[in-house]
Amino acid sequence: MHAYRSHTCADLRAANVGDTVRLSGWVHRVRDHGGVLFVDLRDHYGLTQVVADGDSPVFAEIEKLRSEWCIRIDGKVLARDESLVNPKLPTGEIEVYASAIEVLGAARELPLPVFGDQDYPEETRLRYRYLDLRREAMQNNMKLRADVVASMRRRMWDSGFREYQTPVITASSPEGARDFLVPSRLHPGKFYALPQAPQQFKQLIMVSGFDRYFQIAPCFRDEDPRADRSPTDFYQLDMEMSFVTQDDVFATIEPVLSGIFHEFGAGRVVDADWPRIPYAEALLKYGTDKPDLRNPIEMQDVSDHFRGSGFKIFAKLLEQEGTEIRAIPAPTGGSRRFCDRMNAYAQKEGLPGMGYIFWRESEGAMEAAGPLAKALGPERTEAIRAQLGLGTGDAAFFLGGHAAEFEGFAGRARSEIGQELGLIDENRFAFAWIVDFPMYEKDAEGRIDFSHNPFSMPKGGLEALSGDPLAITGYQYDLACNGYEVLSGAIRNHRPEIMFRAFEIAGYGADEVRARFGGMVNAFQYGAPPHGGCAAGIDRIVMLLADEENIREVIMFPMNQRAEDLMMNAPSEAGAEQLMELGLRLIPQDKG
Amino acid sequence: MHAYRSHTCADLRAANVGDTVRLSGWVHRVRDHGGVLFVDLRDHYGLTQVVADGDSPVFAEIEKLRSEWCIRIDGKVLARDESLVNPKLPTGEIEVYASAIEVLGAARELPLPVFGDQDYPEETRLRYRYLDLRREAMQNNMKLRADVVASMRRRMWDSGFREYQTPVITASSPEGARDFLVPSRLHPGKFYALPQAPQQFKQLIMVSGFDRYFQIAPCFRDEDPRADRSPTDFYQLDMEMSFVTQDDVFATIEPVLSGIFHEFGAGRVVDADWPRIPYAEALLKYGTDKPDLRNPIEMQDVSDHFRGSGFKIFAKLLEQEGTEIRAIPAPTGGSRRFCDRMNAYAQKEGLPGMGYIFWRESEGAMEAAGPLAKALGPERTEAIRAQLGLGTGDAAFFLGGHAAEFEGFAGRARSEIGQELGLIDENRFAFAWIVDFPMYEKDAEGRIDFSHNPFSMPKGGLEALSGDPLAITGYQYDLACNGYEVLSGAIRNHRPEIMFRAFEIAGYGADEVRARFGGMVNAFQYGAPPHGGCAAGIDRIVMLLADEENIREVIMFPMNQRAEDLMMNAPSEAGAEQLMELGLRLIPQDKG
Repeated sequence: MHAYRSHTCADLRAANVGDTVRLSGWVHRVRDHGGVLFVDLRDHYGLTQVVADGDSPVFAEIEKLRSEWCIRIDGKVLARDESLVNPKLPTGEIEVYASAIEVLGAARELPLPVFGDQDYPEETRLRYRYLDLRREAMQNNMKLRADVVASMRRRMWDSGFREYQTPVITASSPEGARDFLVPSRLHPGKFYALPQAPQQFKQLIMVSGFDRYFQIAPCFRDEDPRADRSPTDFYQLDMEMSFVTQDDVFATIEPVLSGIFHEFGAGRVVDADWPRIPYAEALLKYGTDKPDLRNPIEMQDVSDHFRGSGFKIFAKLLEQEGTEIRAIPAPTGGSRRFCDRMNAYAQKEGLPGMGYIFWRESEGAMEAAGPLAKALGPERTEAIRAQLGLGTGDAAFFLGGHAAEFEGFAGRARSEIGQELGLIDENRFAFAWIVDFPMYEKDAEGRIDFSHNPFSMPKGGLEALSGDPLAITGYQYDLACNGYEVLSGAIRNHRPEIMFRAFEIAGYGADEVRARFGGMVNAFQYGAPPHGGCAAGIDRIVMLLADEENIREVIMFPMNQRAEDLMMNAPSEAGAEQLMELGLRLIPQDKG
Repeated sequence: MHAYRSHTCADLRAANVGDTVRLSGWVHRVRDHGGVLFVDLRDHYGLTQVVADGDSPVFAEIEKLRSEWCIRIDGKVLARDESLVNPKLPTGEIEVYASAIEVLGAARELPLPVFGDQDYPEETRLRYRYLDLRREAMQNNMKLRADVVASMRRRMWDSGFREYQTPVITASSPEGARDFLVPSRLHPGKFYALPQAPQQFKQLIMVSGFDRYFQIAPCFRDEDPRADRSPTDFYQLDMEMSFVTQDDVFATIEPVLSGIFHEFGAGRVVDADWPRIPYAEALLKYGTDKPDLRNPIEMQDVSDHFRGSGFKIFAKLLEQEGTEIRAIPAPTGGSRRFCDRMNAYAQKEGLPGMGYIFWRESEGAMEAAGPLAKALGPERTEAIRAQLGLGTGDAAFFLGGHAAEFEGFAGRARSEIGQELGLIDENRFAFAWIVDFPMYEKDAEGRIDFSHNPFSMPKGGLEALSGDPLAITGYQYDLACNGYEVLSGAIRNHRPEIMFRAFEIAGYGADEVRARFGGMVNAFQYGAPPHGGCAAGIDRIVMLLADEENIREVIMFPMNQRAEDLMMNAPSEAGAEQLMELGLRLIPQDKG
């Protein structure tokens, strides 16, 4: 017989009754039923009940077992009494009567039990991750993640892509976040960087003539901690194609992602229609460029109804240039109680409040209620209602000012209202392409800078670059799913003359462009093909599929929020000799 | 029609004659046949001949095209004259008569032509890697690599493994080489390390109950440059299994690798039998633990024949303890000319020379020739011949001393002899498992240290550790293919008490073990399963399959031998602010 097992803990069935078997696994639970011991033996695949009574030669040894000891059991498969069959367990028809046992690995007292559903502080879970990971939910999350990534690969291969590996130790990449640096020993005083994304390399792969590239790519950003992102490394499904338009990229990646969500969505609905929403429209309707389309609420500009109206605050506001009034319709939200709650929510978020109107039945007729309705008068109120398509039992909230100032809150309020009113179908994945991102924006000091990726092709090419920078959009797109950005991409600017001009607008001279992005700019002077692609966030997609809100639930060995690995003790001090070799000296830190 | 192409450059056949098509690609070659221009248009998939004569509206534009311009061509598919059909080209039956053209990306004068087979200095190739990669051989190498890795994944999935990703930014790993360090910004003065291999993490994955893990894992070692290894990162097919013996690991990985070599070996023979050779036997027979079994030469100990013989040098040598005489048989090497050449080879390698005997025909009988035969006398000479199974036309070479001193050279001489005599079948992949590696060795100062991986399970467990350390072997194994190590692995030591004792023998106290490998040692105290696995070198395997001798031929964007990326300019200087954030200061380097 094999040294450790003849079967896994998920294998045995009624047909095995009478067989002599060998199982290995962990002691999930021991129960003592008055002289009869039951051990739930667990391995990666399942659970098998082991039993021993006073007649068993190993009763005394089994009595000594504790949770999470790793053991080997030999025994005979017995049928369970019909009344004791456990239909929830694939091995529930049988049990194994123990005749021999070997302790393969004993366990000290557990800082974190594996059996049961107790919550433990995250620091404890991360320090003893190997125990935490034994829990069923974590086993499932890790399997899900592995299966999602495997399926991504299969689907990309089937779409004619090959996976090419790009360097991990390389030069600084211009993704806008901080690079992790790696000191060079052979060139003391110089540094490599870990790639924030393989963007330059994948574009170089296109210039090298490979046509279709993808990679499950590790990316590295030295970012400040946040609950929903890893402070060090994360993974992207990164892809790039040559001789393509934006439509080609969408047509290629949509079936891949749609397939993934169907395959691993556990029955949740996956929208077949992925609308394409221009960036400006997304901000207007949803207050965000990553709208949750499960929420049916769409905001509207209702400025005209307030212009010169009796609601003086908004009327005055509208006299300033660039201001507007936006309505958030709230179907079924038509009660003073609900409206007041949302008003309080706005105040909690730091606003003076949120104006509202709600429509109720009064003596058989529809009546608009709320202070705003009174100030506006019945005609304007009715016009607003008609525009928003609301009726009795509904409400609308109003925000005014410069869009940039209230849009973020408007988006959150839309979510809150949708959530509170139960308008969001939790069993659904709703996708939206956000397109036509602006190329430029004004920064806080009023200077023109790139608003997103400087390497995207401006719509209209070189010609468009002579107009108002703030009006230029690019072939740049995101994909939102249920309110999260799951993918970002662009058709790239592969023409050096357009690229230099695009950078010039943002205040970067040709020399600086060459210094910062020399590798790519040089390459583009040797017959660059038109190309484009995208990168999808794997951690985020697995979170959505696993229905988890913390990225650390879908990563095997994550850092904590202070970017520490408590289990492996990282980061830690380096040896003096090591630093000397690297040509580095530590600056004494103020411990005060 | 699509903006860039209706077909790839590999698509068009006789059946397309008469179609109007659009192609995009690179100008591979332009030929001017007296008023008729031929353009070989190349993309990732193939080559199509484009033609234009004076009647073509784009003749003048095509005349201006230069090599490696990226262009779009519209035109009509014409059948080639039967005499002009090119059977070597899938599109050789047709050509496209150009009616429109768009230059998608012009190219400056090329520092490196893509067309043709000229050799260029490696520095030029790496600086303009995007041109170098357009060449057919490099396209094929990169496709091969991608396909090999994809096939590895498929085969591992089919064997019940899931791929789990381990951290890239982590703690120092104890693989014996230098770590790359990554300074922490959130913890100034502290450092992460890039993993030399995911060894500790994969063992932790086993302790976490995942049973079967694999990963195409990036590994990082800060090593001094060498032609056949990358100075920064490389990839392993890394795998680990729980509840297994050495036989299980072999039975799992053999079909995976054998399948890969069959699939991508381009018809070369893949040995079905992978012999298991104990380490000590490998050194004796082949002078190396990575023998090339395509070479049929097996060395033998022939000390007895020299003891007290007339060949005084060896006879005296054998009076010292621990010395021996080893013979390298050289079938078909039986000529003075060959023997002298090998003797000269030995001298070139720094030895005083290599004794030899060769057997020739002399007056119808076999005669042993060479100075050694004379000194030994006919009886001893004949006994050696009989032991080695040699005959007329063969030779044997002899080396003597302490095995450790001559074994390395003996192995190289065996290769040289096999090569020179044409004994090696180049169309064959010959594998050998090397098993029973010693756990310990004496270092230069006579101290006992681990000879290979300290985490391997010693054969015989705790009991064996009380005997002579140098006699202890471990469940540790390598796989050699054609003289290269392609895989290394072990059954791990999962029992803390055996591990502490094993480290104690090598002079590491419990505290030091805890400090260096705390993550893993702690984990083993919570019910660790028996486990083992291996890691196969992907770059090396692809090199063997591609028949390349330089690792940079199978890596998309390799560093040069000074660990520099000339294309991306890495490593480079870091900003003062960046260093300040990391708590680092540069030690001024002596530029002298």
